[in-house]
Amino acid sequence: MLRLVAAAAARLVPPAGPCLAAPGPPLGRGLLCCRGRGAAAGGGSAGGRQLPALKTPKGTRDHSPAHVVLRARLLAAAERCFKRHGAAAIDTPVLELRDMLVGKYGEGAKLIYELQDQGGELLALRYDLTVPFARYLAMNKITNIKRYHIAKVYRRDNPAMTRGRYREFYQCDFDIAGQFDPMIPDAECLKVMHEILSDLQLGDFLIKVNDRRVLEGVFAICGVPDSYFLAVCSAVDKLDKMPWEEVRSEMVGEKGLSPEAADHIGEYVQLHGGLELVERLLQDPKLSQNKQAKEGLGDMKLLFEYLSLFGIGGQVSFDLSLARGLDYYTGVIFEAVLVQQEKGPGEEAAGTGSVAGGGRYDGLVGMFDPKGRRVPCVGVSIGIERIFSILEHRLRASGEKIRTTETQVLVATPHKHLLPARLKLVSELWDAGIKAEIVYKKDPKLLKQLQYCEDTGIPLAAIIGEQELRDAVVKLRDVPTRQEVDIPREKLIDEIRRRLEP
Amino acid sequence: MLRLVAAAAARLVPPAGPCLAAPGPPLGRGLLCCRGRGAAAGGGSAGGRQLPALKTPKGTRDHSPAHVVLRARLLAAAERCFKRHGAAAIDTPVLELRDMLVGKYGEGAKLIYELQDQGGELLALRYDLTVPFARYLAMNKITNIKRYHIAKVYRRDNPAMTRGRYREFYQCDFDIAGQFDPMIPDAECLKVMHEILSDLQLGDFLIKVNDRRVLEGVFAICGVPDSYFLAVCSAVDKLDKMPWEEVRSEMVGEKGLSPEAADHIGEYVQLHGGLELVERLLQDPKLSQNKQAKEGLGDMKLLFEYLSLFGIGGQVSFDLSLARGLDYYTGVIFEAVLVQQEKGPGEEAAGTGSVAGGGRYDGLVGMFDPKGRRVPCVGVSIGIERIFSILEHRLRASGEKIRTTETQVLVATPHKHLLPARLKLVSELWDAGIKAEIVYKKDPKLLKQLQYCEDTGIPLAAIIGEQELRDAVVKLRDVPTRQEVDIPREKLIDEIRRRLEP
Repeated sequence: MLRLVAAAAARLVPPAGPCLAAPGPPLGRGLLCCRGRGAAAGGGSAGGRQLPALKTPKGTRDHSPAHVVLRARLLAAAERCFKRHGAAAIDTPVLELRDMLVGKYGEGAKLIYELQDQGGELLALRYDLTVPFARYLAMNKITNIKRYHIAKVYRRDNPAMTRGRYREFYQCDFDIAGQFDPMIPDAECLKVMHEILSDLQLGDFLIKVNDRRVLEGVFAICGVPDSYFLAVCSAVDKLDKMPWEEVRSEMVGEKGLSPEAADHIGEYVQLHGGLELVERLLQDPKLSQNKQAKEGLGDMKLLFEYLSLFGIGGQVSFDLSLARGLDYYTGVIFEAVLVQQEKGPGEEAAGTGSVAGGGRYDGLVGMFDPKGRRVPCVGVSIGIERIFSILEHRLRASGEKIRTTETQVLVATPHKHLLPARLKLVSELWDAGIKAEIVYKKDPKLLKQLQYCEDTGIPLAAIIGEQELRDAVVKLRDVPTRQEVDIPREKLIDEIRRRLEP
Repeated sequence: MLRLVAAAAARLVPPAGPCLAAPGPPLGRGLLCCRGRGAAAGGGSAGGRQLPALKTPKGTRDHSPAHVVLRARLLAAAERCFKRHGAAAIDTPVLELRDMLVGKYGEGAKLIYELQDQGGELLALRYDLTVPFARYLAMNKITNIKRYHIAKVYRRDNPAMTRGRYREFYQCDFDIAGQFDPMIPDAECLKVMHEILSDLQLGDFLIKVNDRRVLEGVFAICGVPDSYFLAVCSAVDKLDKMPWEEVRSEMVGEKGLSPEAADHIGEYVQLHGGLELVERLLQDPKLSQNKQAKEGLGDMKLLFEYLSLFGIGGQVSFDLSLARGLDYYTGVIFEAVLVQQEKGPGEEAAGTGSVAGGGRYDGLVGMFDPKGRRVPCVGVSIGIERIFSILEHRLRASGEKIRTTETQVLVATPHKHLLPARLKLVSELWDAGIKAEIVYKKDPKLLKQLQYCEDTGIPLAAIIGEQELRDAVVKLRDVPTRQEVDIPREKLIDEIRRRLEP
């Protein structure tokens, strides 16, 4: 069986020894533990030199070649979907003026990385891609665009690396900005979410939807004062993790809500269902009198109609307990959760919680626009890091090796003094667009060259010895079957292309 | 007219007015000037609200969709080449421990962005990709790897945006680490540089090579004290921009070198040529006695042999004035310069100076390794931002429009009340992997839908009216020719695929 590079085919199962020798670091935590010294060590010494601790900053990690390949597969699936839906890509700086981020993240603000004042502007690292997007729209006076953005964001959070929570992590966002007829873009965001999660074969998932206006309406008719809104939201949001009784006692005990109001809320937020629930609540004598709730329920009805035309209505649940933390949502909100969690032996579940989420935020762009002009927006964010940890666990469990290079041909020689012949031939292959390598030795043994093919998964070897040079042929070897055929030199490139056709 | 993505077919030629209105910002500086208020403005007010200045941090910029597409083409050319040469990708955090960057960049150190001390580790933004690569090798005890890394780096430099100098910019690096036979990896780095610059069709370019050891040898036999090395290097490095007399007077006047030493240096550093120059210097009675120079010249001879086998010897010049700034080079150094510069009317040349460079740095990994173990490295960095500004100028001059979305089919209706039919059909296309859009209106006019296709470059429209629904057909319209054909619904996807074949 073929073994890819070293770096190339980093094993995903950690080797027996305490540390995988060079050249291929294993994926993930293997990488983090593959160290001679503890991360806490203040500094080593090399012949008396004081060295800094050899590590990456807390909550960050390097991505080994195998990591990069796996991540690229995942991001490509998302990008394919975004392009299928006609989105354009933008990019914004990792740095933003600090002032841009102020007042957008509620509690999250304390997790923002700030740069030192080195003279000039006060800067911070971006916390998400949504606020920079809104800043971009306002700054360029763009009133409609469908865009995606896949990039790293930064939060000084408590890292939980095994569950995919890092301080530097990717976000993968798709947003539709503009004044359009109701719920058409919103339904498309849910379709995008559904397509990506299906494509990645993560197993069964459920999409929950709710609407901020419905929640506000419920709280209003239950007599919750406005000032309690966020506190009650955050209690309600825990209903997927704890029973109603506990949520109720948190509301009454900790948050000081009246028992009657709490009970009344409980009648609503434990409801979930499909279109029929929307219809029922539209008939609810109290809720239907609340303007906010009525608008939200009307849009929810439209949303379910569109989702059923998209063929995904059955996997979407109207769930009145879904609240989502961010301040800036103004209408529909949604979240996808995996129904079945995969666990490694002795490990925590890799993919707890939601793997994608989003909602409508009609007020954010107006916060940046000098004249307060609003640009309605709705968007979805795919939780790449969580999904990545699930795929990583799965790959590790399967023992599959990832090929990290794409080399198609190794140019090899069986005798000494043939380096010039190798250099000439490999150069011809490069110029013909063929992915090719040689080993960087003047006179390598043929066996080592063939071993390198097996180690790194190179499917073909083009071998030239003295006889082949005299006969103007190249011996083309199929590495897996070990079959060799002499090919006239001038036909070599065509023959290689023919063999590499899918 | 319905303009969805609007940004979708951003014109690259700035419009007549001073500022391109939304929705499509132009490329590059257009984007920067497309602002209602000066960048220096402290804050605007929106109905009495104080807003922060609506801008990106100094020396950074947003990338519009057209920008992103152009940049992706450029990066794809580099990545294709790196993969053709068997390299694997790695990624490292944007943040590094400050200690990692100390003592690696000489004068550059003052340009490092430092993060505020918010408790915990002291951090900085990476200044290049080479030092993080060396840190990665040492940390993971990797002794050989061929890797590439394309990512953003950060320098608090004086921005010169029209010439592609930013504070946040891409680097695009290819490096070969490991103990190998001399000059084989070095020659491959030059081949990589040559392939990428040729592929991008930047016009004629020249690759200059030199060797740190040859320079050191020259200075030694001319009687330059060691402590003058960097000062003399930096003077010599200016020989491509000013005549020898000026360089000489800088050495003697400013740097305090003796006139005799300067004249002696002048005899060497004005030399440039090919293999014959290497041979001549190997016979030079003084230089051939210097151990360093002799080693460097021996390697240079080997390099030219290999380059000629790669078919690129003719475009490489051994240039004794090439010095390159970074401290960490230990052997061969190289740089590519465009021979002909393109200028826009009334503009500075877009691509002054080098567009790629690199060299051998055998000591850097050892600076991180606790035991000081050395891993010899050689690498090349492609100057993406400079090349990008050249391509941007060229594109702007050509008036070519860049398509920023890839949508293949617009699903359209000619009558009212057909939104459900549109939603159903577009969903079928998405599920079949076809890139498709609808406009987000309940009852859009057909003309506006077709106009949207023309504006954004969508080649096909799938039109369903009441008659088509009754007949179970779809009218497929070729947007450029305006030809329409009825296709049975069940054959639509096959027909679309057939038409989209290249």
